[in-house]
Amino acid sequence: SLQIRVRSTSSLRSLDRTIVGDVPFKDRHIGPNDADMKEMMGTLGYENLDAFLREVIPDRVRSNRSLNIDPPDGQTEAEVLDSLRKIADRNDSSKKSLIGLGFHNSITPSVILRNVLESPEWYTSYTPYQPEISQGRLESLFNFQTLITELTGMDFANASMLDESSAAAEAMSLAFSVSSKSGAKSKKVYLVDKRVHKHTIDGLQGRARGLGIDIVLVDALAADLDGAEINEVIGFMYQYPDTEGCLRSYTEVCAAVKAKGGIVCVAADPLALTLFEPPSKHGADVVFGSAQRLGLPMGFGGPHAAFLATIDKHKRRLPGRLVGVSKDRLGNSAYRLALQTREQHIRREKATSNICTAQALPANVNAMYAIYHGPAGLKKIASRILLLTTVLKLGIEAVGSGRIVPSAHGAEYFDTLVIEMDDAEQLITAAENECGFNLRRVGAHAVGISLDETIGLTDIAELLKLFAGFSNYSKLISDSFIEELVNKALVSGRPNFLKRSDEFLSQDVFNKYRTETEILRYMNHLKSKDVSLASSMIPLGSCTMKLNATTEMMPFTWKGFNALHPFVPPRQATGYTELIQSLEKDLANITGFDAVSLQPNSGAQGEFTALRMIKNYLKSISEGDRDICLIPISAHGTNPASATMAGFKVVTIKCDTRTGYLDLGDLKSKLELYGSRVGVFMVTYPSTYGIFERSIVDAIDMIHEAGGQVYLDGANMNAQIGLCSPGELGADVCHLNLHKTFCIPHGGGGPGVGPICVRSHLSRFLPTHTYAPFADKDAISPVTSAAWGSASILPISWTYIKLMGSSGLKKASIAALVNANYMARRLSPHYNIAFRNENGLCAHEFIIDVRPLKATADIEAIDIAKRLMDFGFHAPTMSWPVPGTLMLEPTESESKTELDRYCDALIAIRGEIAKIETGISPRAGNVLKMAPHSQLDLLAEQWDRPYTREEAAFPLPYLRERKAWPTVTRIDDKYGDQNLFCSCPKF
Amino acid sequence: SLQIRVRSTSSLRSLDRTIVGDVPFKDRHIGPNDADMKEMMGTLGYENLDAFLREVIPDRVRSNRSLNIDPPDGQTEAEVLDSLRKIADRNDSSKKSLIGLGFHNSITPSVILRNVLESPEWYTSYTPYQPEISQGRLESLFNFQTLITELTGMDFANASMLDESSAAAEAMSLAFSVSSKSGAKSKKVYLVDKRVHKHTIDGLQGRARGLGIDIVLVDALAADLDGAEINEVIGFMYQYPDTEGCLRSYTEVCAAVKAKGGIVCVAADPLALTLFEPPSKHGADVVFGSAQRLGLPMGFGGPHAAFLATIDKHKRRLPGRLVGVSKDRLGNSAYRLALQTREQHIRREKATSNICTAQALPANVNAMYAIYHGPAGLKKIASRILLLTTVLKLGIEAVGSGRIVPSAHGAEYFDTLVIEMDDAEQLITAAENECGFNLRRVGAHAVGISLDETIGLTDIAELLKLFAGFSNYSKLISDSFIEELVNKALVSGRPNFLKRSDEFLSQDVFNKYRTETEILRYMNHLKSKDVSLASSMIPLGSCTMKLNATTEMMPFTWKGFNALHPFVPPRQATGYTELIQSLEKDLANITGFDAVSLQPNSGAQGEFTALRMIKNYLKSISEGDRDICLIPISAHGTNPASATMAGFKVVTIKCDTRTGYLDLGDLKSKLELYGSRVGVFMVTYPSTYGIFERSIVDAIDMIHEAGGQVYLDGANMNAQIGLCSPGELGADVCHLNLHKTFCIPHGGGGPGVGPICVRSHLSRFLPTHTYAPFADKDAISPVTSAAWGSASILPISWTYIKLMGSSGLKKASIAALVNANYMARRLSPHYNIAFRNENGLCAHEFIIDVRPLKATADIEAIDIAKRLMDFGFHAPTMSWPVPGTLMLEPTESESKTELDRYCDALIAIRGEIAKIETGISPRAGNVLKMAPHSQLDLLAEQWDRPYTREEAAFPLPYLRERKAWPTVTRIDDKYGDQNLFCSCPKF
Ligand SMILES: Cc1ncc(COP(=O)(O)O)c(C=O)c1O
Ligand SMILES: Cc1ncc(COP(=O)(O)O)c(C=O)c1O
Ligand SMILES: O=C([O-])O
Repeated sequence: SLQIRVRSTSSLRSLDRTIVGDVPFKDRHIGPNDADMKEMMGTLGYENLDAFLREVIPDRVRSNRSLNIDPPDGQTEAEVLDSLRKIADRNDSSKKSLIGLGFHNSITPSVILRNVLESPEWYTSYTPYQPEISQGRLESLFNFQTLITELTGMDFANASMLDESSAAAEAMSLAFSVSSKSGAKSKKVYLVDKRVHKHTIDGLQGRARGLGIDIVLVDALAADLDGAEINEVIGFMYQYPDTEGCLRSYTEVCAAVKAKGGIVCVAADPLALTLFEPPSKHGADVVFGSAQRLGLPMGFGGPHAAFLATIDKHKRRLPGRLVGVSKDRLGNSAYRLALQTREQHIRREKATSNICTAQALPANVNAMYAIYHGPAGLKKIASRILLLTTVLKLGIEAVGSGRIVPSAHGAEYFDTLVIEMDDAEQLITAAENECGFNLRRVGAHAVGISLDETIGLTDIAELLKLFAGFSNYSKLISDSFIEELVNKALVSGRPNFLKRSDEFLSQDVFNKYRTETEILRYMNHLKSKDVSLASSMIPLGSCTMKLNATTEMMPFTWKGFNALHPFVPPRQATGYTELIQSLEKDLANITGFDAVSLQPNSGAQGEFTALRMIKNYLKSISEGDRDICLIPISAHGTNPASATMAGFKVVTIKCDTRTGYLDLGDLKSKLELYGSRVGVFMVTYPSTYGIFERSIVDAIDMIHEAGGQVYLDGANMNAQIGLCSPGELGADVCHLNLHKTFCIPHGGGGPGVGPICVRSHLSRFLPTHTYAPFADKDAISPVTSAAWGSASILPISWTYIKLMGSSGLKKASIAALVNANYMARRLSPHYNIAFRNENGLCAHEFIIDVRPLKATADIEAIDIAKRLMDFGFHAPTMSWPVPGTLMLEPTESESKTELDRYCDALIAIRGEIAKIETGISPRAGNVLKMAPHSQLDLLAEQWDRPYTREEAAFPLPYLRERKAWPTVTRIDDKYGDQNLFCSCPKF
Repeated sequence: SLQIRVRSTSSLRSLDRTIVGDVPFKDRHIGPNDADMKEMMGTLGYENLDAFLREVIPDRVRSNRSLNIDPPDGQTEAEVLDSLRKIADRNDSSKKSLIGLGFHNSITPSVILRNVLESPEWYTSYTPYQPEISQGRLESLFNFQTLITELTGMDFANASMLDESSAAAEAMSLAFSVSSKSGAKSKKVYLVDKRVHKHTIDGLQGRARGLGIDIVLVDALAADLDGAEINEVIGFMYQYPDTEGCLRSYTEVCAAVKAKGGIVCVAADPLALTLFEPPSKHGADVVFGSAQRLGLPMGFGGPHAAFLATIDKHKRRLPGRLVGVSKDRLGNSAYRLALQTREQHIRREKATSNICTAQALPANVNAMYAIYHGPAGLKKIASRILLLTTVLKLGIEAVGSGRIVPSAHGAEYFDTLVIEMDDAEQLITAAENECGFNLRRVGAHAVGISLDETIGLTDIAELLKLFAGFSNYSKLISDSFIEELVNKALVSGRPNFLKRSDEFLSQDVFNKYRTETEILRYMNHLKSKDVSLASSMIPLGSCTMKLNATTEMMPFTWKGFNALHPFVPPRQATGYTELIQSLEKDLANITGFDAVSLQPNSGAQGEFTALRMIKNYLKSISEGDRDICLIPISAHGTNPASATMAGFKVVTIKCDTRTGYLDLGDLKSKLELYGSRVGVFMVTYPSTYGIFERSIVDAIDMIHEAGGQVYLDGANMNAQIGLCSPGELGADVCHLNLHKTFCIPHGGGGPGVGPICVRSHLSRFLPTHTYAPFADKDAISPVTSAAWGSASILPISWTYIKLMGSSGLKKASIAALVNANYMARRLSPHYNIAFRNENGLCAHEFIIDVRPLKATADIEAIDIAKRLMDFGFHAPTMSWPVPGTLMLEPTESESKTELDRYCDALIAIRGEIAKIETGISPRAGNVLKMAPHSQLDLLAEQWDRPYTREEAAFPLPYLRERKAWPTVTRIDDKYGDQNLFCSCPKF
């Protein structure tokens, strides 16, 4: 027979590459083509790219190695999709996981899948800091908040947390901050019921250590809190239903804790809350949990939105983002992010939380899921699950195979049963191998089963057959047997205990979009209000709003990646293992480090994780007294916040106000001052001012000489790949934002992944996880609910790297530098470019300093930002890192045409400002002060402005063809903060 | 061992259904809920639905059976997706088909896949008859036309044809109409080169028979056309490259044909045209072909856009739709459908083509593919294919396994080789079983191979190993052997013969969207100009613009359905076979007929097919003289056009102008007049006037008594499912529009599927196909290029039926009737409802007669249609079936809220008209005459209109929150037709 099935050899593959065909992906990803690049070099006055690069990046910083990505020239989109399918196929998505523990099978309605999760208009938008062009997603997040307050019975909920684990930690922090604000600094004990999920308790440990809290596990059922130690208690946490499936109220324990000023925090299942009394009835001050089962796939752990809600009294302590209602210039109501002044970029080391990127996109899916089902629909789904659980319980009792936990204690149950039986191990094995079910191993002699909205009677029948096989039950598990059980369950009904009786979700929005047509139009209408990368460039400095290519995004919604429970046996997830290892390898290569953890699900989470590791490392080398973290004043607010949370004291290092460079003198004097207390130096490179600082290597050397570790904030990695690297600079650790540099879209404020890359001496401290196949004895406790945080978006970054290859990645970095410098050059006759290096160049971003315009024209950064909306553009980063300025990062993905269009807009605005300066336009009520202009505003009957309607709407010709409208006029921030509405009032 | 893997029994499944969980799909699909229905019954004055139905549908028409869909209560969305995955898995999509014959592997760029093919804004829009709210897709279709004219070298191209086969027939028709218009009615011979694809020639037969044309197959290489018969020739057709892969110019044959007034028609491969001289150089008058390989998956045959292009002289003979440029009221250029007066709904039996629904969505994908690659990119893709073909050719020559056709004749080749060899059969079998390639069987002793853009050197190496196995070649097919071949191919280069040297596609649009970001924004910008079902209801009478649910749409872009070549061995397509048989069964059940063909790819194509079958049936029972087709005056224009094309003479039957009912008296007298010549009666039921006519059964009886057949146009099937059926009414055949009743989206003007359902006496005449496993000796010749026309959209209708079940389908019909009657009732105080039954009720649609407003206010239907755009709405069907009226069909998918919003808009417009009638507004220049209003129009500095800007833009409050803007003002149709521009001028 023929011997012909030999697939591609690598030599044929590279020969094949020499035969040009389709445009390579890198040229789809990178905006300027070679001719554009040449033209831009001309504008900048350089012979060629090399000459330019030599003047952007200091020699001592520039890398002299090549990246080592396989294949070096990148795969084609077709090839990479093929590889991904094979990887996805190696994950066993055919098994039905009934493991529970916060992760459940769930049905994402197709219409929401396609029109939100797979829609670039939703997933490529940024956090809605510019509310006038973000009313769509703000409304949706507001719906999420309303959903959560209604389900939990709390007064305020934020716009999502990273996951249940970090929400638990934030709840504890809130309790801590309440008690320390009340002067009780000595209180340090946090009681946690032992029936909280183990991985949630694990996730609390790192945060507790950082804050100096003692976590005390208690059996809340038996707890006798009359003793003296109750005075030490900052709070008490329990779960509802708990890890054994029981719902209990613990009213007495709660009352005792509260009587002494403690805070009650409850981890709750949002679907259970549709049928069971909300914890607000039992004294809860904080309710948190994961909203995953409201319409999101498990995704091997994430991304999912968690929620955190609290009572009115603590509303200003809610971490993260909060959408509120305010009004615009015309008095129309409008959404915006409320209480922004609480954020860590303002409060820095005084912040109590470091959460920045959250889970906006998943939260929007949750909100739409709830809107589509409505209160009655959600109740029906939950009731069905409860009924099936009852049927299963009656069945197991009938076949007599084990002792069931919820009934034993007289507690209520919802979807989870724990069955104690000798043969638990064997049953779990049989379930996996013979029935295709993953059940939960609860110790050696119990099995857990959690049902969900995908389960039917057929599954129940199979489960009962399985149990019957492990008991003495000899009769047939027939259809009529099942029918009897169903009738019995129906007849017995539900006890009144803990039964929810109040109405919830009666608001209009949850009761009118019941058909696919209606919800499609609602989602479509919301997205039409927003500016995203699908409409125009978003040059947010430090945010790297680059292309999120469709090929990168596709695997995220494939079953092979999104159907897996995070705690399946590793043999069922070999595709993920392969992808994760490959991504870790490439990221280590790119950063010049030795080991990587993909666990942290945001940049800030990465910071916290790495700092905890450094803490433990220092302790391990008997340098545990090094408790100081040096941070330049220009750092992102999450740096000092993370450092504080990790147990460091923050000392600020100055920067030169003229050059933006790190003040090495100040660094030196702080090192002298704090000497052996210096634990770590956290620095962003290229600096947040957008400069490749020459002195970085000196600074790093100084820290190392002083015995400290160097942490490099990798937010600006997009300027570096293939050109230099944190590892080569000499740093010990860095975090990356895959949702910046590596193409995970921002999703309107998350999800993200913030991996940490470390030098070998730190690798044994990389975080572990209860359900992960790795666990170094020195590993720090986990920071996320799942071992690999937001696993199902890792294929995005993997795909990007494989598509670009070494050469493409490097080319992208260069284009990012060229694009930024080209824009700076075009704008420099019109605006003051704040910081440049000695050759007059910036890195991949730059700051325009508009502060002088305050005096000459009464114009501030915000006026320019709002006027840009009239040009169809999103503003640059406002007032960070320097207050009153604008920072632009075009990224490599923007074409020269688009850069020019943005420059033209800014130049036209400068012209409008000049008219104010010369007195042609008034200082008040001019087109900038009145910006942005909505349709309602411009079509008003009366018109007595010093400019025409057309000047307001179409200041440049391209707008006549392509205009994106702000849907409201300028929003009143103060009014909104003073009158805080963060959820829909009852209908 | 355990015996536990028994899956769902049907009794458990139905028990499961009794436990309510998620909202059933039917309640997602149907707009009004039970409470709404009750309220609407109240408005209409009926106790309950039964009472209402009794008065809508005559007793003698109403069905007394239940539908028999499995399962009767419908599957859930999750279940149906599960079933579909299993079906898709039974198709073998792992094989690489190199069969060619007009179907090639192709890469749909992911960004186009997601943002056009999978985007409801693109796929749910209607044919752009209302251009002011369709500028996006009009621009895209215009780009398609430009693409085609540039590639073919012709002057005019239309906006797509159904497929290559029907394009061939249309080309022949064009030749026929040219020669008959030139007075040469006796000319009847159409020469077709024998190297045209066999299935294309097959597809010509039916049309030729209908028109009385003799197709004469010739060997154009050998043809000696100096004989006398050349005078009889209306045209000559050849293929480029031909079915053996050869490109030749036949300049002399063409010249000879043209010298006698004949028309030269060329079937061309659009990708080959990027490298080879366009047929315009060789004398072609018409060039047609399939654009599939420009970015569309093969989809087991379709849907794909075919193209048809011609020279200036024949531009007004182009069938189908043609997008042209005109200008709007402000003088801005604007796109629109040109030459609408040529359409068959105007010309009826005088039309030369019946094409109505075409392939707009696929054509848009083709256009975007070309825009994304640009001329250089397309050439590179084609050059790579040509190079690989050369390598393969050199390799096969080197291993010495067979005689290769293209070289033998000294012709050029592009992508296809035909290799004559004794072992062809065995080689094809080995290719399939051992290498995973489907090769083409060319007779018994030759094999065909067509390469495409997905092929690489690895594939070439495998093919050569395969060939080596069938020759005496004993050396290894090593990488270096391949490398030698590549070098040889590169060195030898291309001969100049037939080499394309002119520039093409130099227009701006094909040269500026080269990055993913840029094309994403372009596609996004275009779609933002258009109104689709994703924005608001589109109550186009007779068009059934209902929900196209996402779950229905998803399988269409799955590999398991879209990767199959239509001519694979049936064993590789068992999933399709199962799905097709199941769909045929359900459609037969729904229509009350015995057999179904899913081949026709539009309603009009279905009409033609069925009429051809009836012709042959009549002949078979020796009634071949029955050449008359009776058609009511109210029929859709495609009916008489199809009848003429099928060889019938059309006789028109009157309708009562007051009731709209068929004039039975006229029918009787025509039957008396034509007696034994009556072949068929074509009627729409419920009538096009939107009434369930009581007399239909009488009419059918009369026809049958006269010996004729009854054809029921199923466009209005949406009013009938589960309530009555063509079969029970007594008809012999009907066609369905799956793109109306069965949820295939309209795609902006296609694709569609027009199955025919027949009584058993007609079943043996159902169309056959060369490459299909069915072929009754009486079967008529095929009407499409592939056996099942647009196979890959059949899952949409299958899914709809399975989701709805018998009960859901019936409920949908009822809701369609209720919705229409509710709207009619709400509008009746304000507008004259033209036709109603004796109980004052309509069926699923109704006509408002606005003709009297001409006299009272100088307002016509078009003014109301355009003013509706200012309200964010698409107009109803205008001027059909009654000139000067508007016909509304809300469908069951619209909610009561949306119906009310539309009624409110129409009532508000009536109020504006009343103001004209009472002299408050002027008769000219009022808000209706000036409608629609664009942003540019309303923001103009000057304002001297008799209404305010706000009145123009926001006539009702909801528009302040949700406004869709027409992007141009009213378009000047006459100007556009007089100055016909249908493609972009050269840059
Ligand atoms: C410099 C810098 N560091 C850290 C972060 C925090 O990342 P994340 O938002 O993912 O928590 C950001 C986010 O914008 C940043 O710009
Ligand atoms: C009554 C009727 N018959 C036939 C057709 C033709 O269908 P198609 O456009 O699919 O060719 C239509 C299309 O609108 C129609 O309304
Ligand atoms: O239409 C045919 O007669 O084949």
